[in-house]
Amino acid sequence: MKSMKTVAVLLFEDFETLDVFGPVEVFGVLKKEYYVTFYSQKGGLVSNSHRVSVDSKPLAEIDSKPDIFLIPGGYGTREEVNNPELITIIKAVSESSNYVMTVCTGTALLARTGLLDGKNATSNKRAFEWVMGQGPEVIWIKKARWVVDGKYYTASGVSAGIDMTLGFLKDQHGVDYARDIAFKIEYTWHEDKANDPFGIL
Amino acid sequence: MKSMKTVAVLLFEDFETLDVFGPVEVFGVLKKEYYVTFYSQKGGLVSNSHRVSVDSKPLAEIDSKPDIFLIPGGYGTREEVNNPELITIIKAVSESSNYVMTVCTGTALLARTGLLDGKNATSNKRAFEWVMGQGPEVIWIKKARWVVDGKYYTASGVSAGIDMTLGFLKDQHGVDYARDIAFKIEYTWHEDKANDPFGIL
Repeated sequence: MKSMKTVAVLLFEDFETLDVFGPVEVFGVLKKEYYVTFYSQKGGLVSNSHRVSVDSKPLAEIDSKPDIFLIPGGYGTREEVNNPELITIIKAVSESSNYVMTVCTGTALLARTGLLDGKNATSNKRAFEWVMGQGPEVIWIKKARWVVDGKYYTASGVSAGIDMTLGFLKDQHGVDYARDIAFKIEYTWHEDKANDPFGIL
Repeated sequence: MKSMKTVAVLLFEDFETLDVFGPVEVFGVLKKEYYVTFYSQKGGLVSNSHRVSVDSKPLAEIDSKPDIFLIPGGYGTREEVNNPELITIIKAVSESSNYVMTVCTGTALLARTGLLDGKNATSNKRAFEWVMGQGPEVIWIKKARWVVDGKYYTASGVSAGIDMTLGFLKDQHGVDYARDIAFKIEYTWHEDKANDPFGIL
């Protein structure tokens, strides 16, 4: 356990299913190296409009610095950007984490903390205007599958979270390592983070 | 609710994360048309080795004929093929469902019911020998992203479940409809079910 990397996954009501479970599948293949834990503001079951209900620990129980903090998107972010208590916790956990990953509109939650100000980031192009409004000082990249700026990894919509997580593994372990994981889960990885085949902007 | 299609998702200990949540994401985009419910043998929280813990209803509470019965794979299938009580329930629910979908080694569970005997089916190529052993009378297709035989849809490994679910939507609603969903979740859909880019057999 000591030598394992810890992945803290944030949940909130009406998270996007695949924003969470795409990256979790990738880390799950590496379950001897990455240890995933789900957290939410209050802990307990967290549900979404896809009728998924997932168990979680309260965020207050994060007692160490996660290696990776994963923030998904989903319609719930429209509520949570106006939840100052959660944004405060997201800021604190993001600051203490070695890496922070956001998927889709999860970038809006991170943007609200101010931690992305002056940094490059992206999000779902179909919600881009709204996301940009959550962080006017962020350097928003309109065409990108995912963006890396220091410890911050931000992805476009839904499946882009899988591409970004594989990209993170490439950065950590090399491209062959990441390709091997993609092959195991039979996923056609978009290796080039600048190539945004689903961009509309 | 009356006009919605019902999707019953089977869970068991150590299911594969993306086998479940790939298809659930696709149906989730269509949440006004497809109503997803998670079931397990006893109900309650069901966990896997990726440390995901999902709430479920007991299979005994399925009180109507689901439109779609989804059976995921995962290491847990190695145990469950030897769980006659579960196989009996899977057989009954499969018989009463309009469509049955399996992902990865989930095909092994369906094969154990005998319902696939004499039918075409596929599974994960990296577990193919073992899966074939669970249904010697099945016509196993060694090169396929997914296979359709009547009401039975069987997919290759993990992400192939997303391709198959989109393929199901194509069969139900046309190819443009399915492509629109793939675009929304930013997923590069393998449209040709005979094309198996991850095949090793």
